[in-house]
Amino acid sequence: MREVCIIGIGQTPIGELWETSLRHLAFDALQAAMADANLADAQPDALFVGNMLAPRLNDQQQLGALIADFCGWRGIEAATVEAACASGGVAFQSGVRAVASGMAEIAAVVGVEKMTDATKSAVTAALTTAADADYEGVHGVTFVALNALLMQRYMYEYNLSHEAFAPFSVNAHRNAANNPNAMFQKAITPEAYARAPMISPPINLLDSSPVSDGAAAAILAPIEMARDLGVTPVRVLASTTATDSLNLDDRHDLLALEASRLSAERAYRKAGVTPADIDVFEVHDAFSIIAALSLEASGFAERGRATHLAADGGIAIDGEIPISTMGGLKARGHPVGATGVYEIVDLATQLRGEAGENQVQGAEIGMTQNIGGTGATVVTHVFAV
Amino acid sequence: MREVCIIGIGQTPIGELWETSLRHLAFDALQAAMADANLADAQPDALFVGNMLAPRLNDQQQLGALIADFCGWRGIEAATVEAACASGGVAFQSGVRAVASGMAEIAAVVGVEKMTDATKSAVTAALTTAADADYEGVHGVTFVALNALLMQRYMYEYNLSHEAFAPFSVNAHRNAANNPNAMFQKAITPEAYARAPMISPPINLLDSSPVSDGAAAAILAPIEMARDLGVTPVRVLASTTATDSLNLDDRHDLLALEASRLSAERAYRKAGVTPADIDVFEVHDAFSIIAALSLEASGFAERGRATHLAADGGIAIDGEIPISTMGGLKARGHPVGATGVYEIVDLATQLRGEAGENQVQGAEIGMTQNIGGTGATVVTHVFAV
Repeated sequence: MREVCIIGIGQTPIGELWETSLRHLAFDALQAAMADANLADAQPDALFVGNMLAPRLNDQQQLGALIADFCGWRGIEAATVEAACASGGVAFQSGVRAVASGMAEIAAVVGVEKMTDATKSAVTAALTTAADADYEGVHGVTFVALNALLMQRYMYEYNLSHEAFAPFSVNAHRNAANNPNAMFQKAITPEAYARAPMISPPINLLDSSPVSDGAAAAILAPIEMARDLGVTPVRVLASTTATDSLNLDDRHDLLALEASRLSAERAYRKAGVTPADIDVFEVHDAFSIIAALSLEASGFAERGRATHLAADGGIAIDGEIPISTMGGLKARGHPVGATGVYEIVDLATQLRGEAGENQVQGAEIGMTQNIGGTGATVVTHVFAV
Repeated sequence: MREVCIIGIGQTPIGELWETSLRHLAFDALQAAMADANLADAQPDALFVGNMLAPRLNDQQQLGALIADFCGWRGIEAATVEAACASGGVAFQSGVRAVASGMAEIAAVVGVEKMTDATKSAVTAALTTAADADYEGVHGVTFVALNALLMQRYMYEYNLSHEAFAPFSVNAHRNAANNPNAMFQKAITPEAYARAPMISPPINLLDSSPVSDGAAAAILAPIEMARDLGVTPVRVLASTTATDSLNLDDRHDLLALEASRLSAERAYRKAGVTPADIDVFEVHDAFSIIAALSLEASGFAERGRATHLAADGGIAIDGEIPISTMGGLKARGHPVGATGVYEIVDLATQLRGEAGENQVQGAEIGMTQNIGGTGATVVTHVFAV
């Protein structure tokens, strides 16, 4: 198996981008990534698209061919890879394999989602397809409500108030303030968090990542090519996916986030590292509770201790395990099928030392974790410079 | 890159399977395939699901984790791979890469589609997402109508009557009569073809593959494992995908099916074969016209000559290039996201010499071609025993 690395990254700003179509968003991110790889005039051998909602919200499938053609790459291999909100992560993994197997020299990955052209009820119904349609969705539960069940149970088990989760949202917003691509470039206070409107108890507005449009891209190649192109390679040390039941009532342990644990363990083993070696962790903070569960399942905090880690400053840029360093899903934004690639772009930015005011000093090894549904598909990547 | 082979195949019958849910269909095919590989009590390392319509017709995404869990394989890697009607083919290619790269030892692939629980208008709208939503779908054109434009143009260019296409449908139905898993196990006459109800001129009912439910599965492993398990390996000689514009009006040559030509050429080069070496070709006969165009683009007939090849018996079991040997999409059935895997299962059945009355004598090298949309994504596989 060949060693694979990221040779270029690109992204669009995240927001309500009504003036830009889905294919344009993908094009913008891919062109930026190809230029970043010093390949502005070349084309990749293969394109992998991470997307969840286009079949419902944009009446569009077969995004691989559509986007390849729109980029001027008609003829190349292309496909969409989907695992709900983990679509970006599994698409990136497909790119890694295309290069690792020798079946492609240059693979492009783009995560793209266009959510804000649809009605709120259409978006809510579409997001619920991440849950088990026959055992959860059929009862009318929304995706936020399923996450609220997890948060409620966590607060009960560990005897915590809602305010205990404030540091996650405060940290994300503080970091987003310095990210020109973030949807909310604005710090918030714990007081603002406490009085935010309730969405689905106990999840309030500032526990929740926003409905967004955006696209992020990465270009993958064998390590030797990075040297030839004169770019800084971000090496892929591990690319692992694990699964769990979709429906919460079928989990063995509601708060264990078993697929997160499994995929992180596989990634550590493959990369030959431990959680202590990870300098930055781009976490899937779709809701505050998911950031807490992911930190615990991945070995960065004991069970029931993630909010304490956050309260003690452990998740800040200068903390022991910085998370959501460019704003995370919470404040940078969460265009669902794109999120897994945004996490990787943010981490690559850190490892290349290009994160500006949010730079984690001395960051050499980093990890991303991208979560589909309430933890049914979890993709972990470990990178190094 | 490791040599990869199919070690097991499985399928459900195709039909209007109202008593069986989507996950059950996938389970049935996967269990059969694992048993066929002498792995009934084992589990694969990774599962790749080919599916197109579940997000719309079954309100379900994240089928990878859902099906893995339902099979008792909770925890393994899983994802969905989509390219409209070529979803099965691209999912299979993902399985090939997982094994070829060494990231998995055993990869399971399942194509599954459950179309018949939805209303006809919902199915028609969902299938149209294979076309370009912004340039084709928005005008109200259906997917059948787009294929009808191709057929109309072909008849005009080559001065052919509608009856010239009868041999494709007659051949498919004759072969399906001997396939217990086929949706229509019944031969038809050229006269029946001529008087079938019109769907979208010039495409009539017997030019069209049926809306269907079904699942097909294949298990992939390194070649050495087949020997250890005592099963006949069907070797993957080539796995290639090519793309074209989704919207027909943007094609350079409407009847060239450029992605079919490209992916076939790449496959021949990779496998080190020519069209003359192919003993069986499982073609994507979603409509008669697509079978004709695919045969021509892949080098089995000169342009404008495919209907003549068919009329001369060239596509029959004992012809020079047998197609749709178990009934094809036309008569075996076309559960869209599953079709690419059904083609591969049918071909493996031929190469293993297990096709019964439909056996192509001496079949050693075979090819499948799976087509997304009106030719925007084309996946070609070459296999050998």
